[in-house]
Amino acid sequence: MKIEKVKLNDGKAVLTSYLLGESLEFVNIDARPAVLIFPGGGYHFTSDREAEPIAMSFMAEGFNAFVLHYSVGKNEDFSSPWKDATEALALIRKKAVEWNIESNKIGVVGFSAGGHLAAALGTMGNERPNAMILGYPCILSSIGDVLAFPVPSLEKEVDELTPPTFLFSTCEDQVVPVEHTIHFMHALNEKKIPFESHIFQAGNHGLSLAKSHTSSGMASNVDDDVAGWFSLSVAWLKKVFGDFPVSDGSMMPDVNDTSEYSIDVKLEPLLEHPECRSILLEYVPAFNDSDISDSAKDFSLRIVNRYYLRSLSESQLIGLDKRLKEVPYNERE
Amino acid sequence: MKIEKVKLNDGKAVLTSYLLGESLEFVNIDARPAVLIFPGGGYHFTSDREAEPIAMSFMAEGFNAFVLHYSVGKNEDFSSPWKDATEALALIRKKAVEWNIESNKIGVVGFSAGGHLAAALGTMGNERPNAMILGYPCILSSIGDVLAFPVPSLEKEVDELTPPTFLFSTCEDQVVPVEHTIHFMHALNEKKIPFESHIFQAGNHGLSLAKSHTSSGMASNVDDDVAGWFSLSVAWLKKVFGDFPVSDGSMMPDVNDTSEYSIDVKLEPLLEHPECRSILLEYVPAFNDSDISDSAKDFSLRIVNRYYLRSLSESQLIGLDKRLKEVPYNERE
Amino acid sequence: MKIEKVKLNDGKAVLTSYLLGESLEFVNIDARPAVLIFPGGGYHFTSDREAEPIAMSFMAEGFNAFVLHYSVGKNEDFSSPWKDATEALALIRKKAVEWNIESNKIGVVGFSAGGHLAAALGTMGNERPNAMILGYPCILSSIGDVLAFPVPSLEKEVDELTPPTFLFSTCEDQVVPVEHTIHFMHALNEKKIPFESHIFQAGNHGLSLAKSHTSSGMASNVDDDVAGWFSLSVAWLKKVFGDFPVSDGSMMPDVNDTSEYSIDVKLEPLLEHPECRSILLEYVPAFNDSDISDSAKDFSLRIVNRYYLRSLSESQLIGLDKRLKEVPYNERE
Amino acid sequence: MKIEKVKLNDGKAVLTSYLLGESLEFVNIDARPAVLIFPGGGYHFTSDREAEPIAMSFMAEGFNAFVLHYSVGKNEDFSSPWKDATEALALIRKKAVEWNIESNKIGVVGFSAGGHLAAALGTMGNERPNAMILGYPCILSSIGDVLAFPVPSLEKEVDELTPPTFLFSTCEDQVVPVEHTIHFMHALNEKKIPFESHIFQAGNHGLSLAKSHTSSGMASNVDDDVAGWFSLSVAWLKKVFGDFPVSDGSMMPDVNDTSEYSIDVKLEPLLEHPECRSILLEYVPAFNDSDISDSAKDFSLRIVNRYYLRSLSESQLIGLDKRLKEVPYNERE
Repeated sequence: MKIEKVKLNDGKAVLTSYLLGESLEFVNIDARPAVLIFPGGGYHFTSDREAEPIAMSFMAEGFNAFVLHYSVGKNEDFSSPWKDATEALALIRKKAVEWNIESNKIGVVGFSAGGHLAAALGTMGNERPNAMILGYPCILSSIGDVLAFPVPSLEKEVDELTPPTFLFSTCEDQVVPVEHTIHFMHALNEKKIPFESHIFQAGNHGLSLAKSHTSSGMASNVDDDVAGWFSLSVAWLKKVFGDFPVSDGSMMPDVNDTSEYSIDVKLEPLLEHPECRSILLEYVPAFNDSDISDSAKDFSLRIVNRYYLRSLSESQLIGLDKRLKEVPYNERE
Repeated sequence: MKIEKVKLNDGKAVLTSYLLGESLEFVNIDARPAVLIFPGGGYHFTSDREAEPIAMSFMAEGFNAFVLHYSVGKNEDFSSPWKDATEALALIRKKAVEWNIESNKIGVVGFSAGGHLAAALGTMGNERPNAMILGYPCILSSIGDVLAFPVPSLEKEVDELTPPTFLFSTCEDQVVPVEHTIHFMHALNEKKIPFESHIFQAGNHGLSLAKSHTSSGMASNVDDDVAGWFSLSVAWLKKVFGDFPVSDGSMMPDVNDTSEYSIDVKLEPLLEHPECRSILLEYVPAFNDSDISDSAKDFSLRIVNRYYLRSLSESQLIGLDKRLKEVPYNERE
Repeated sequence: MKIEKVKLNDGKAVLTSYLLGESLEFVNIDARPAVLIFPGGGYHFTSDREAEPIAMSFMAEGFNAFVLHYSVGKNEDFSSPWKDATEALALIRKKAVEWNIESNKIGVVGFSAGGHLAAALGTMGNERPNAMILGYPCILSSIGDVLAFPVPSLEKEVDELTPPTFLFSTCEDQVVPVEHTIHFMHALNEKKIPFESHIFQAGNHGLSLAKSHTSSGMASNVDDDVAGWFSLSVAWLKKVFGDFPVSDGSMMPDVNDTSEYSIDVKLEPLLEHPECRSILLEYVPAFNDSDISDSAKDFSLRIVNRYYLRSLSESQLIGLDKRLKEVPYNERE
Repeated sequence: MKIEKVKLNDGKAVLTSYLLGESLEFVNIDARPAVLIFPGGGYHFTSDREAEPIAMSFMAEGFNAFVLHYSVGKNEDFSSPWKDATEALALIRKKAVEWNIESNKIGVVGFSAGGHLAAALGTMGNERPNAMILGYPCILSSIGDVLAFPVPSLEKEVDELTPPTFLFSTCEDQVVPVEHTIHFMHALNEKKIPFESHIFQAGNHGLSLAKSHTSSGMASNVDDDVAGWFSLSVAWLKKVFGDFPVSDGSMMPDVNDTSEYSIDVKLEPLLEHPECRSILLEYVPAFNDSDISDSAKDFSLRIVNRYYLRSLSESQLIGLDKRLKEVPYNERE
């Protein structure tokens, strides 16, 4: 895992990247879906309760995560965080390959004022996220009094390009009334944008994960029912983006799908091909034992060596791979 | 969040530290409980499927996490990973303050051969972890054939100092038969060590989190029921270690519990104390407004400024704090 | 458990009562909360998928349940099911004592057209339920085309007497569009009626419990995420009604809270009262053993006999109870 | 739903049957799996906390349920409840058709002493249940002291015919120590009987569902984690028995799978068959409208009428069905 910090918008904002480590064992993960997180704080500050803990929760589900500390305070106006957010999304798309991200599976996640910024990006951006997750978001401009500066009213901005949206909030919220959520939901529905919405009756504003470690020690910030929003949001994101693929058989490439022999194709055709077989036996005499070759045939040599044989060193593997690749490839009929 | 790598045992092993960021907002977290993770791999390798993804899952619950890449391979014997593990635990305890860890809330988490190493540390170590979580662990020495080297049989090593233990495995496991788990559970029970054990009927060896992103793309590595082990283990750890504290009121220190005035005690007594009041009004004239002072009185000035006033800069806060601390403290009667 | 059927509205409707068995062991349940269930079916029929299976689910949580087969079909108009529903609620309140129901903890549960009938009762009834649970309800009169007859538009009927409401539906519903739910939620919010609302993105109309046994065999009627609505609704109902009470100590009545001695008060004061003590020892000489009397003192004799002594027959218990009740009661000071 | 009571063993025992109502809408349920429940009570009594509430929970999942009040008390010996249990299982199998039960999907569910009786039936019976669910069961004869009479030690009785078994208990159980569960699990494993076992660390004896309504008002009888045993047991039972079937298409029989035309086969072939078509149009002229016939073609007329047309009365349906069945059937090629 790697953590990087990038300054945006002439240093006004900081984007923190949390990038999971990759491994040959994660054969079903070419690139990862990602979330870009905007913590709340009334555009006065960005709350740590809605920053790293949210990133950790999505990483635990296999997503790469980004937290944006955007411009806040009474000396700014909405154009500053808006520019921060726009630059952040553009940068993530631009660096998608370097950061191992699927550029069309980037969800934006925002809470309270951060939910406003997320919803702005999803409805007004030239470039849009692929999904939105909005926690007790500010939507209506009428909330401007308690924010650091006036903001646009976003229920009017929903358009056909707005991505699928997940909303959660509480009916009892005294800070950002639930009508914000209802109006946005209504606008999404008018434009036929798919959405999911969970409004819990009980619970005050700013619950974050609604767990003890994000509670600031206040019992009113812990709620087992509201805490369910997170796994609901992951299940929803996986419906929108698709899940990490799994298959009943091995996900090892079949030699028939490639155009060369290697240590990464199924062993079976190699063992049936006279020249490949003789190379393999040179390195792994045990393949003469039909028990071993039988149980191994559906896997690649790399996997068989890692999990079963464990007899070949990395340099032996590289040498063997090179030898196999030199064998003229003939398609099976 | 910070990531550090430390070499142990003359460079044979690497301990990766995953340390969550701290924040004034996490007022109920003085230091964090931690887990030390030993991935499996038959003492031949350490599986990435049981390393970082496990760390992420515990971090998402507020724990700091450590992954040990211990010594493996046929050129080693058990004394090497044993030394690695022993050094890792000692180092974490030693650096507990620096790494913001509660030194008596360190759980060791191991899978398969890593479960063997974890159980060895918990039963034979001079220094012991405070809890063990063992996933489909190797326990009996009879498993030695498929491991890289012979290992001690741990069901014989359970003693009175063995910490509370959480076990999970599957009845259908063909690689490490479930009798390993049963024998260890039996030994724990004989010594009256508290334990929790979940043996699922279905599922093969090495399920890790039993989710798609740790599956290597094999459907047989995904199981919604077995995936429940993780949240069961967290609930159990919180019973053993205690949860992050929450309280119905604010967790702000009361001035009565300290011996000085500051921006971190409740506002109420400050506003009632003539000299403090006049300093406060200098910085925040609005406190003359009884509405504001009433609603603020149960919070500290730092919190009130962050969440409500937002008028004081960091340097103003520091100056005000200094002024308050200079006021002679007199206990209220 | 008992099942009763009562005809209503001159035989047009049938109310089926499902009444859980009572037991001395359920000491914390004086009377039960209840649900009155209206299955859906477009006012053309009442679907069995939304009738008994729903009753069973609430009974499994300790509620008594009622299913109303109300008037349907093109030969009726709305006044018929309305009368059925009104009579049903009145009858349940009237028979609350006989049916062991808390008359102020009656929730109405309706699906689709049954959700319309439930919402009508909750907004327009002279007598109202204490909570509403509405599954993919019809609310707007515009749905009239696909119903058996025209119906009132209920978003206009929400008033201050409308009880707390739980809503669930799916965004993809093609039969009763999600706008029905949104409009009702909006109306509840306008009137400050507490509500909880879960709109899942995926899922067609009429999911019932979204489980295999209520699916009619159609895979599209099974959805693990939507299936969560039921436990969310129970958690919500328990917030609205309160849960079955539990306490850290025994719930046995203390002799101090009564005005006579009996086998149902705590043993301790009886064993300290000379006359009661001598009666007890007559029946249970073992009480002379201080171990036994110590461990028993917080329980009543009836409980101690049932779970521990097991030496007294029912007739002995009755005799002993009579003897104790004859002892003149003197309050402890 | 129907409830029946049957006396067994010359009136010593009572079997209560809880039989769910059937419906044409439950097209994927030919007959139901069932559970036979043995409440606990030390063979001194049968606890109501482990009787009807357990039956309700399984019925909520689509199972038929039976509760056996078996012979208890110091005047009996083990042969009495053993005979009760044996007769109960035999009767359920005998009446399987009448009671709409799959005779090879009968699980026995027992708690504490009832768990002993269940495990006896599963290991020693001439006729065996198809699955066992044992809650904090008595297994070892050493528990005899606290029971009403001596009992056989069942860990010795596990044989090849023992059905798959689900166990749960708590490590802290002071009444029936967890070694009972461990020894039985060990015996199952020796005989290669598939099992699932959940031993929770915390929790006292006799938790039943571990919910408030089965708690007798004692907080120690409520535990959110242990309460998970029930849904784990249902997931397990569905793995052992199979789930209620669902399919992507309709489960309506295709006319090709039958040998006659009727209102219960798919409409499409009927509308393509000249004689059937003319009969259909007689009853439903709207089928001339291709929109209607298109959307209806994958369903049977019975279903289309119920959910969509709603124009035909029951007697019209019967008449139409008769007419269709008189049309000579010719197989499609």
